[in-house]
Amino acid sequence: MSEIRRDPLSQTWTIMATERGKRPSDFARPEPGKKAAKPRRPCPFCGEGEMTEPVSEFAIWPGEMKKGDRSWLTRVLGNRYPALRPEVELNQGQKHQIYHWLSGVGGHEVIVESPHHDDKLKNRSIKQMEAVIRTYCQRYKYWRTDPRMAYVLIFKNYGEAAGASLSHPHSQLVATPIIPPRLYEELEAAKDYYEEAKECIYCAMIKREKRLRKNSRKVFENKTMIAFCPFASRFPCEMIVLPKRHSSAFEQMQSAEIKDLAEMMCQIGHRMDKVLHDPPFNYLIHVGPLRTPGLLYYHWHIEVIPKLTTPAGFEWATDIYINIVSPKEAAKSLREAKVKI
Amino acid sequence: MSEIRRDPLSQTWTIMATERGKRPSDFARPEPGKKAAKPRRPCPFCGEGEMTEPVSEFAIWPGEMKKGDRSWLTRVLGNRYPALRPEVELNQGQKHQIYHWLSGVGGHEVIVESPHHDDKLKNRSIKQMEAVIRTYCQRYKYWRTDPRMAYVLIFKNYGEAAGASLSHPHSQLVATPIIPPRLYEELEAAKDYYEEAKECIYCAMIKREKRLRKNSRKVFENKTMIAFCPFASRFPCEMIVLPKRHSSAFEQMQSAEIKDLAEMMCQIGHRMDKVLHDPPFNYLIHVGPLRTPGLLYYHWHIEVIPKLTTPAGFEWATDIYINIVSPKEAAKSLREAKVKI
Repeated sequence: MSEIRRDPLSQTWTIMATERGKRPSDFARPEPGKKAAKPRRPCPFCGEGEMTEPVSEFAIWPGEMKKGDRSWLTRVLGNRYPALRPEVELNQGQKHQIYHWLSGVGGHEVIVESPHHDDKLKNRSIKQMEAVIRTYCQRYKYWRTDPRMAYVLIFKNYGEAAGASLSHPHSQLVATPIIPPRLYEELEAAKDYYEEAKECIYCAMIKREKRLRKNSRKVFENKTMIAFCPFASRFPCEMIVLPKRHSSAFEQMQSAEIKDLAEMMCQIGHRMDKVLHDPPFNYLIHVGPLRTPGLLYYHWHIEVIPKLTTPAGFEWATDIYINIVSPKEAAKSLREAKVKI
Repeated sequence: MSEIRRDPLSQTWTIMATERGKRPSDFARPEPGKKAAKPRRPCPFCGEGEMTEPVSEFAIWPGEMKKGDRSWLTRVLGNRYPALRPEVELNQGQKHQIYHWLSGVGGHEVIVESPHHDDKLKNRSIKQMEAVIRTYCQRYKYWRTDPRMAYVLIFKNYGEAAGASLSHPHSQLVATPIIPPRLYEELEAAKDYYEEAKECIYCAMIKREKRLRKNSRKVFENKTMIAFCPFASRFPCEMIVLPKRHSSAFEQMQSAEIKDLAEMMCQIGHRMDKVLHDPPFNYLIHVGPLRTPGLLYYHWHIEVIPKLTTPAGFEWATDIYINIVSPKEAAKSLREAKVKI
């Protein structure tokens, strides 16, 4: 069973998922001249590999899936090596002087975004992306019914440098009994702004960004969604995607918004490919906490980070970033890229 | 001139160092089959390259350096591409509705740790490491006299995966007009603990870790220094080095402590090499803010992070880490490694 431990100083949490019995020497670099042995397994999400994985927990689209049935659009599976497990009992946390820890209760799922191994975001159809987004909505709804959970994060790692260990298109979901520190800080900052200005800070940001005419930081916009490179972008070509209508809960999107978000994500995927040639990237969906679905001060959004640089000691120690590409320059390249979807 | 911008939500800061005129397309991956062109330059810190770099700002050991003189032990140079510059005027910060920024005043130095290109931490002598530590002390003293500066971070990136772009042994120093967010949080947590417990949390942690007999998390200890793998280690084989005597200012170390710290860092370098085969790593020196040199609640320390895993979307979004090696297991391997120094 894993354990969630809090660092008494940085206040970050670590999930100690030591069940796989890894030893420090498993991380040793190979001797010079020798390559690390990398076993080639069949893809667990398509073809033959399908049989070797745990049975899917959900097959939401377009209906229940039977084994071997390839007519599905997306699937939700339990992670083979879950960091957190729903069957663990929630405890109130334990404390020994300076150290605190919780039992490793939670959820860890894989969302398979397509039956096709090569259906990457950079060449995906809007229709397929819509199915992915509907799957995300379904998972938020599902986890909102578990009273032990405080937060659900859905995210995507694409490419090895961005932390993906499998190449079949997939996202991941982690449900946690705590609100993650970084999201907690964001929520607090948004709340403070709201109390002072009586306005959602994200709504204010959309207004401000739309007002910039020359040298805009906008990347793409449709009827209900907008994407731009943030004022204080930490990384080259970092983007933020926001719904124009205020909402703190992803799954409260209306049908037209889901379609527009699908178009937006395809636009972003195709444009990143055009400018940066199939870069590794992460995207992270920020939503309000599970127990407070209708927040006036918080606005769900998606952070998109092409993985082009290596954050190193400085960034790690300080949470200050050094970016050598201006957000306006980045936005211009992405905005002007010619793509066909 | 660079600009320091604050993100209104995450409260992180970004130094926009766009003077080098990099464009997004400079980060594009090479076409398949083509390798990225990597110009081979002579090492700027030794041999011929010495002439091509900006003149050293300091040559503290064992005396002033003359051009071409190779009898130095360590040198301090201005960074060729400084993120922040001391000649910039400090402004009080500007604000436009939701956005804040400061002028890019500060310092960015390179500390060359040895005249020898291959004098890595994993095979360094204690005597040479002592010279490096004395150089760090000298730099803290120097920057404490600049009233515009709030913080000095000294850190080391070793190996490409840890963010090093040059292989000659070196560390870096960044002086900032703000206290970095991550260190600010740490300072606040330490202050809260002190107010409640009337004891420095780091002193409490040393006591607690020394009390663990079986399955200890200790890696190495000498008369004045101790290193262990933290209770909530975020990464496999992460370590923290602490002086046993309470002090918040690195440069207030006594001579015996400097010698012991030099031994400690060599022990760590050699042990990481033994267990992990020359891993990439970062080390980061955490000290109190420049303007408050004698804090009772804060204890300087060094964070050592072997770069063995790729933090990905989950860690990035949440500040929650998943570690699959227990700190006790990691400490045991490092503690029991046989090394000769």
